[in-house]
Amino acid sequence: MRATYMYAPGDVRVIDVPDPVLEDPTDAVVRVVRSCICGSDLHPYHSMSPTVDGSSMGHEFVGVVEDVGADVTTIRKGDFVIAPFAWSDGTCDFCREGLPTSCRHGGFWNSGDVRGGQAEAVRVPLADGTLVPVPVAEDSPLIPSLLTLSDVYGTGYHAAVKGRVGQDTTVTVIGDGAVGLLAVLSAHQLGAPRIILMGRHKDRTDLGREFGATDVVAERGAEGVAAVRELTRGDGTHVVIEAVGHMSAYEQAVGVVRPGGVISRVGVPQYETAPVGFASLFGPNITLTGGPAPARAYIETLLPGVLDGSVDPGKVFDREIGLDAVPDGYRAMDNREALKILVRP
Amino acid sequence: MRATYMYAPGDVRVIDVPDPVLEDPTDAVVRVVRSCICGSDLHPYHSMSPTVDGSSMGHEFVGVVEDVGADVTTIRKGDFVIAPFAWSDGTCDFCREGLPTSCRHGGFWNSGDVRGGQAEAVRVPLADGTLVPVPVAEDSPLIPSLLTLSDVYGTGYHAAVKGRVGQDTTVTVIGDGAVGLLAVLSAHQLGAPRIILMGRHKDRTDLGREFGATDVVAERGAEGVAAVRELTRGDGTHVVIEAVGHMSAYEQAVGVVRPGGVISRVGVPQYETAPVGFASLFGPNITLTGGPAPARAYIETLLPGVLDGSVDPGKVFDREIGLDAVPDGYRAMDNREALKILVRP
Repeated sequence: MRATYMYAPGDVRVIDVPDPVLEDPTDAVVRVVRSCICGSDLHPYHSMSPTVDGSSMGHEFVGVVEDVGADVTTIRKGDFVIAPFAWSDGTCDFCREGLPTSCRHGGFWNSGDVRGGQAEAVRVPLADGTLVPVPVAEDSPLIPSLLTLSDVYGTGYHAAVKGRVGQDTTVTVIGDGAVGLLAVLSAHQLGAPRIILMGRHKDRTDLGREFGATDVVAERGAEGVAAVRELTRGDGTHVVIEAVGHMSAYEQAVGVVRPGGVISRVGVPQYETAPVGFASLFGPNITLTGGPAPARAYIETLLPGVLDGSVDPGKVFDREIGLDAVPDGYRAMDNREALKILVRP
Repeated sequence: MRATYMYAPGDVRVIDVPDPVLEDPTDAVVRVVRSCICGSDLHPYHSMSPTVDGSSMGHEFVGVVEDVGADVTTIRKGDFVIAPFAWSDGTCDFCREGLPTSCRHGGFWNSGDVRGGQAEAVRVPLADGTLVPVPVAEDSPLIPSLLTLSDVYGTGYHAAVKGRVGQDTTVTVIGDGAVGLLAVLSAHQLGAPRIILMGRHKDRTDLGREFGATDVVAERGAEGVAAVRELTRGDGTHVVIEAVGHMSAYEQAVGVVRPGGVISRVGVPQYETAPVGFASLFGPNITLTGGPAPARAYIETLLPGVLDGSVDPGKVFDREIGLDAVPDGYRAMDNREALKILVRP
């Protein structure tokens, strides 16, 4: 089959690899109906260490189950399924607590001998715990929105939940990528009365307004901080969702968070150390939270709104390509020509 | 009157200064009955920049009101009062939200023209919002415990509250100073079934056990982390309270926190940047929280237990001295000869 591998910054290739097969009795093999390219895929696209063997890519996909192992009981051949962006047993204490990304037996796509979703098919470990069957046809118009439950919608929702967004909290969302826009949607769903979206791309921030943003701030850095403070009587907002991952976005978050407030990060940090001392977080009692979204844990909560059409998170996809065009897709997302790209293998 | 000033690392003096007087109609003047030396006073004692004029010291005191301004309505001359470690109006949105340390009109002792509590008397701004009258005599045996409500008990409690300690959370407390020990007491009050105290001083950790610690780990660094992990099936604890403020304690906290858990800091950070990236906080979805305790906000909650004797946080005081002995008191606390020193002006 064909699958996507990255070898060095900017070097993405679609190559022939052996078809995935069942290896463990808890596995399923899923034929990919749609996958996509994630903003976080652009981090290695900028800075990965070159590798001869390449790294398989993709951690978001929906598809149809082609085969299941002998111990799989809830997933059947022919099921249409959503695969969240980590695999997990669904039974350990972490899974029961809603943190399947820390599952005692789980892991992430593209690590060990588990390959990624930007491919024609994927071997899915722990299929019962990982996959969520949904009664839709594979040509359903809901597919793009269902695919967002793999990662990007769950990630935006995680940011809002960890930030403790509610009816009494004002929110700033830093970043107008797909995660930022779906964090806006999530904050709106959780009742936030004011949602300030910081982003510079008008087509994206327009979608952000459609998702519930009440204000848009195009400035960045000190000017951006000043603009948010001007909108909030000098205070900043109770919650700041950081959906970028660069230090400049972290600094912006510190600049616009209200004393006693929360910075909730879902952009994968491209730094290891950051200011957290008296002057930044400690003095004003700021909480720093977030991490990789336990997307699997949110699917039951978010699926009904997708199925009944009350939300349409799939609007973040603005281009659809075939698998062989994935390298061009990376370029288009990196150039900001495309917001988020749907891949039809 | 006599008051304590610090001029340089290790250089603490008790000097003559003018008696405090009412300056604003919302002021009170309080004669200090007891004050104390705080672990956080040792940070400037180690590293302050030398100053010719000195810095006044002390931010914890109880006393008797000697005079009140014309606009003070709830505090009267002769009242015995607790002064929390920040002054605040009690009416702004931050105060109403329980964050008087960020009061719109408040501030901290020993800043601007407000002096400190290691003195015979103090001018207290915004007396109605700041002071809490308590119906006890100034020779009551409850005085040491009442004094802990100024800061150290409220700070331990803040750590536990911000860490979201409850009946389902295991807790590690890093540091066997007075704040750490009262964080143990607070975690115990909030129902934590397991409280691991990390500390090396047996007399202190014995008091920690009396306050509710179920385990004591004397090792530090990598050995300390390994010991806590061994006690917790390799997982670490849901909550880690960091009551020291040094980078080594922060690293220890990262080492013993369970995925999805919370690091709650109340030791004043002696660093500005720290690891917060994928490997430390982000990957395992760790929340970092804490800050200066809004001690004023907790007094109503904690006072009844002190008054009815069900808790005795004043046990953290193991020495009482007069005001002129305060420089020796700093030395004794710095040498770990004394846990926490009560000052009787």
